[in-house]
Amino acid sequence: MLAKNAFYAQSGGVTAVINASACGVIEAARAHTDKIANVYAGRNGIIGALTEDLIDTSQESSEAIAALKHTPSGGFGSCRFKLKSLEDNQREYERLIEVFKAHDIGYFFYNGGGDSADTCFKVSQLSEKMGFPVQAIHVPKTVDNDLPITDNCPGFGSVAKYIAVSTLEASFDVRSMAATSTKIFVIEVMGRHAGWIAAAGLLTEDEGIPVVGLFPEVAFDKDKFLTAVEDKVTQYGYCTIVVSEGCHWPDGTFLAEQGTRDSFGHAQLGGAAPVVAGLIKDALGHKFHWAVADYLQRSARHLASATDVDQAYALGRAAVEKALEGKNAIMPTVVRTANNPYAWEIGEAALSEVANVEKKMPMDFISADGFGITEQCKTYLYPLIQGETYPPYKANGMPDYVTLKLAGVPRKLAGFEI
Amino acid sequence: MLAKNAFYAQSGGVTAVINASACGVIEAARAHTDKIANVYAGRNGIIGALTEDLIDTSQESSEAIAALKHTPSGGFGSCRFKLKSLEDNQREYERLIEVFKAHDIGYFFYNGGGDSADTCFKVSQLSEKMGFPVQAIHVPKTVDNDLPITDNCPGFGSVAKYIAVSTLEASFDVRSMAATSTKIFVIEVMGRHAGWIAAAGLLTEDEGIPVVGLFPEVAFDKDKFLTAVEDKVTQYGYCTIVVSEGCHWPDGTFLAEQGTRDSFGHAQLGGAAPVVAGLIKDALGHKFHWAVADYLQRSARHLASATDVDQAYALGRAAVEKALEGKNAIMPTVVRTANNPYAWEIGEAALSEVANVEKKMPMDFISADGFGITEQCKTYLYPLIQGETYPPYKANGMPDYVTLKLAGVPRKLAGFEI
Repeated sequence: MLAKNAFYAQSGGVTAVINASACGVIEAARAHTDKIANVYAGRNGIIGALTEDLIDTSQESSEAIAALKHTPSGGFGSCRFKLKSLEDNQREYERLIEVFKAHDIGYFFYNGGGDSADTCFKVSQLSEKMGFPVQAIHVPKTVDNDLPITDNCPGFGSVAKYIAVSTLEASFDVRSMAATSTKIFVIEVMGRHAGWIAAAGLLTEDEGIPVVGLFPEVAFDKDKFLTAVEDKVTQYGYCTIVVSEGCHWPDGTFLAEQGTRDSFGHAQLGGAAPVVAGLIKDALGHKFHWAVADYLQRSARHLASATDVDQAYALGRAAVEKALEGKNAIMPTVVRTANNPYAWEIGEAALSEVANVEKKMPMDFISADGFGITEQCKTYLYPLIQGETYPPYKANGMPDYVTLKLAGVPRKLAGFEI
Repeated sequence: MLAKNAFYAQSGGVTAVINASACGVIEAARAHTDKIANVYAGRNGIIGALTEDLIDTSQESSEAIAALKHTPSGGFGSCRFKLKSLEDNQREYERLIEVFKAHDIGYFFYNGGGDSADTCFKVSQLSEKMGFPVQAIHVPKTVDNDLPITDNCPGFGSVAKYIAVSTLEASFDVRSMAATSTKIFVIEVMGRHAGWIAAAGLLTEDEGIPVVGLFPEVAFDKDKFLTAVEDKVTQYGYCTIVVSEGCHWPDGTFLAEQGTRDSFGHAQLGGAAPVVAGLIKDALGHKFHWAVADYLQRSARHLASATDVDQAYALGRAAVEKALEGKNAIMPTVVRTANNPYAWEIGEAALSEVANVEKKMPMDFISADGFGITEQCKTYLYPLIQGETYPPYKANGMPDYVTLKLAGVPRKLAGFEI
């Protein structure tokens, strides 16, 4: 068998550990140059494939590739670009195959969430039909933790650790101040459709923190919420609230949609956190502080979960190894074999069973009152935040993150309009 | 000389390292039981002294006291409570002395910012007058970095490191996404009156990040700002903005005061970050994300600066040692003796020169265009964020922060109305 090239791309919102998967893919490929001649990465994700804008990863030193393991963000650039369905836009899929053909690409490693699993599956199908079969392997990644079959999604564990630790630290702060000052702290976390990340903030309950969670799974009940908060303030002197950005009123309107206009007539910006804080202030009168973690939470490689980094890397390696075993249209997965101590191994799922399936947080992970998490949820979450693995720091005090050279591969085809 | 007791209290907004100073005070006192019988801490700061609500630190194990060094927040509780001037409220100062007398307290260690330095100074003066002289030593602490004479204030270096690293990480994230998605990231940081913390975010410029700073020292010039942002987006494809909460319009109005009302008629909540992001969106049309770090930044012991922790601890120890040398009405300080590599030693300042003096960021630390920092500023800042010192973590993945027993000292006096 002649060695073919591999194509690797990062898709969708990036994470603290997606580069660890890239590192796993490239290091595994470099260990098999008899079968994988080179890894070309898409500049800015799948757009790089469509526009034939490929990055020659062989130009990167082994040190630079190793440093990806401790560097957050998407080292090759990512994109928010969803290929339309095969029926609506066969042209784009055909273009992908043409580019793969022109660059002798026999392996397609796509590192992303649910949408990219679907794209990956279609590339596999269409390439067969077009007589240039490409082995398409999906490498899971999403802070949303919403892919099916796999125990969890790389990226989630590190966000969970960051939110659990940050919520604890800020709660200690409020506890110190509550006698005469701030009694309410609200932290807004990611999660439009699922409360996985907010649930991680609720782990602070085990550290003695009075904490109330607001999940997208539970319609916001203002009166019940205010009662829950006041109960905590009465008992503990303060209360922490972890609110998902997707928290919504019973009619489905997000709390973050304030419905007000600024002096220019534009819809008022604002997160869910200031809205929740304002409701508490108005009804209960407590002094508050609020934070919106936004990108800080998903890029915080300085506080990654070692479990998460290990799994992200292992899944990248496994993608290559499974491709070399002849596998196609699959996604390597994490299989949990024990909770305490946590044990896991690599499994695999057919992309036909992954594409377009969204894993929700089970309702038995949320406590009966809707504001907390259950023991089942804690048993699931704790292993994912275990272990610390810090990036190296430079003498000047800044982390030593790598920026790649990103040298381009000469183009062979005519241009393509997206 | 008979051993006297010491009183220690935490004042104002807490930090990631104020407990390291507490650890320094208590460990140094425990090494001199011939002179300091016991350390009583004020429950919730100076309020604990006024209400005779004292904590017996001898009930805490040496392990618990050592763990304060890696635990953020105020372990004994802090407060926002400013004693009025001696003329306006001699009663409160006299009460302090009465409580000190009742509990045989000969040393007063007050851990705070400018206001508490002033209180500390007055306690020293009044105690002499009242015939029960107490040696009053101020231990500097404030994320605002606004105390004079000392090279910097414990608490600031860790916030600076957190903001520098977080800004870098989020900027890497935006850089990954900018081709098709987010091009603007705005992070709001603390600093009502001074841009010290925002300046730390600007250190990312040396890491290749296109970053624009908005400081309280420079009135917000919307057009000039939008031009600066668009220049960065044109050149780099994205732009990061670090905005101080105290950023204000030329008329002095804070950007965070939106002047709008919600449906209940209440003034609209909102930070400076969403306002800045909205201005950019309206004028330039770029997709944005914004974060408000709030308490996360000052409580982030998980990413403390080792320099900061070392200095916080050393200043706590030095306070006790200077008291034992007979010093009174002073504040131990950090004296910088070299920049690169950074070297420092402990000095001291008379409280008469510290009280009511606010150190501003020098104008030559801000670049000519008002949106950046100068080399002088970087030379000053880098040493303060150098070194990492992580808290221990438990097997479950959470940091092993200590919560003290906080056993009370039996009261000897009648109650006191504050």
